[in-house]
Amino acid sequence: MSKHLPLGPGGEFDRIRAIIAGLGAAAGPIGDDCALLPFGDTTLALSIDASLEGVHFRTDWLGFPEIGWRATAAALSDLAAEGAQPIGVLVSLGVPSDGQRSTDNASAAVDAAAEIMMGVGAAAQSVGAKVLGGDLVRAERYLVDVCVVGKADRPVRRAGARASDGVWVTGTLGGAAQALRELQAGRRPDPDAMRRFAHPEPRVAAGRWLASHGATAMIDISDGLAGDARHLAAASGLVVEIALERVPCWMGVQPLLAARSGEEYELLVTLPAAFGEGQARAFTLAHDLPLTRIGTCVPAPKGGPGAARFTDRGVAVAVPGGFDHFASA
Amino acid sequence: MSKHLPLGPGGEFDRIRAIIAGLGAAAGPIGDDCALLPFGDTTLALSIDASLEGVHFRTDWLGFPEIGWRATAAALSDLAAEGAQPIGVLVSLGVPSDGQRSTDNASAAVDAAAEIMMGVGAAAQSVGAKVLGGDLVRAERYLVDVCVVGKADRPVRRAGARASDGVWVTGTLGGAAQALRELQAGRRPDPDAMRRFAHPEPRVAAGRWLASHGATAMIDISDGLAGDARHLAAASGLVVEIALERVPCWMGVQPLLAARSGEEYELLVTLPAAFGEGQARAFTLAHDLPLTRIGTCVPAPKGGPGAARFTDRGVAVAVPGGFDHFASA
Repeated sequence: MSKHLPLGPGGEFDRIRAIIAGLGAAAGPIGDDCALLPFGDTTLALSIDASLEGVHFRTDWLGFPEIGWRATAAALSDLAAEGAQPIGVLVSLGVPSDGQRSTDNASAAVDAAAEIMMGVGAAAQSVGAKVLGGDLVRAERYLVDVCVVGKADRPVRRAGARASDGVWVTGTLGGAAQALRELQAGRRPDPDAMRRFAHPEPRVAAGRWLASHGATAMIDISDGLAGDARHLAAASGLVVEIALERVPCWMGVQPLLAARSGEEYELLVTLPAAFGEGQARAFTLAHDLPLTRIGTCVPAPKGGPGAARFTDRGVAVAVPGGFDHFASA
Repeated sequence: MSKHLPLGPGGEFDRIRAIIAGLGAAAGPIGDDCALLPFGDTTLALSIDASLEGVHFRTDWLGFPEIGWRATAAALSDLAAEGAQPIGVLVSLGVPSDGQRSTDNASAAVDAAAEIMMGVGAAAQSVGAKVLGGDLVRAERYLVDVCVVGKADRPVRRAGARASDGVWVTGTLGGAAQALRELQAGRRPDPDAMRRFAHPEPRVAAGRWLASHGATAMIDISDGLAGDARHLAAASGLVVEIALERVPCWMGVQPLLAARSGEEYELLVTLPAAFGEGQARAFTLAHDLPLTRIGTCVPAPKGGPGAARFTDRGVAVAVPGGFDHFASA
């Protein structure tokens, strides 16, 4: 089954490859942002994304509604990366048995589960989806696991990039990383950067626009631009060349940090060479969001696997890969 | 939105009702075993079910493949209760960073994640489904959260029971509870009972048969027969009368324990009064599984809510409700 899983390098991805090899015939075609199921005259897109207290969030950094929003936005980002229209979300919610805290208003105990779910609901509604179901369990630490379902008449996979396609990215990268760095240092982040970290916007409308304007391959950069460029390159079997000096960076953030930040939830997309700045301006007008060309696809060396290569003003630069849950353990 | 959630009583269900009230318009129609989405000429059925170490399982009671099987069977049981055909599963898997244990064969480290997923894959394959995707995260304790997707041309909801319908249950109840009691006492359970606990069979084929033979309402008894009879009665707005002496019990298990055990994953189903023992025998022949009539639906007192009533040889008996994660906390 390993042919189903052309992922970039990394301990976590080695582990996932081993799991899928062990599954044998029980595994479906795994290896895109979403599972894609042809269904009637459309394609269902499904993805699941777990957020755990202490791993993905801390309750002293984010309020409960933000925890719910962020976990849901992360899962919806996978639908965005297929150009899919979200339909609904299902949520497994783990809360400690003392998950009710009192507030200044002594009469109103705040139910953490209800607050998290209000964030989940707000994120779902922001892209036209509903909360379809869930499971509420007692847990030692907070857990928000979100499964999203959507549909796409023409899903954009990771595997469709062609040599000479342009490589583009939405948004401005590094704000979330900057906020995270400040939080980790015990400082209060800049409010705009904090908003990027706590309240990411799933790029659903942007993804659908790109899908309908010729996108050949697309991926969300939840593992970071560098790591996800490697996944896209591996799936498409070519080399993705990225010029770091072109990467749109959050004010005060260096391109190398922006390219490694795994908290961004923007889209990396390949578009035909003919897609130019005029169309990018139309995208920006429609979505109030930058769309920046940062590189080009070139053929892989004969027989070689796909790869991502980075340069800084023409000089090759090594950019370590994306976030790896197990490498950091 | 509370009209969408006619559940039985219990602290956990009060909490779920509060969550759905808070969701407002963001909530879809919640309150069946699965979320049901009309889609083309069929209906999609989706459900999510979390299994946590220390809450739902212990690694000294179950092997890793059993942990994966059991978590997946529990989720597939929700599809069975709609009469749905499973399509696939998505799994969020949390494993500790030391989730590799060595075996007697020093050369073969066992990867817990891969073993759990082999159990997930086997359970999925047993009902014709595939593993479509997942998320692998580092966690303090093992976590297996399974989202299932299936389809049903005619889903059987909880709400369709009518007065005079017969009340039936599949299988034999209490084996899993007996195994659990032995495990909790530090004893080795009887192998057959242990198999019921560790390797429950999702009743998918049985559920589809019942759906095609007139089932008016159906629910899986993952909260226990007593608690889930209350959910079905509340959804259908009538009284479900159950004769405890008719409940098919595992050898050595009293009906009261069998009716409260929340580990059974059998189906509680209402069928028209005309459905009789001859058809039950046909069911048993087809599925090698008992189907036992344990009661009757009667109208609710005028204006009153649905409820479940239990008798033992004609004498009313109080049977406390189903398993409540938060009541036990």
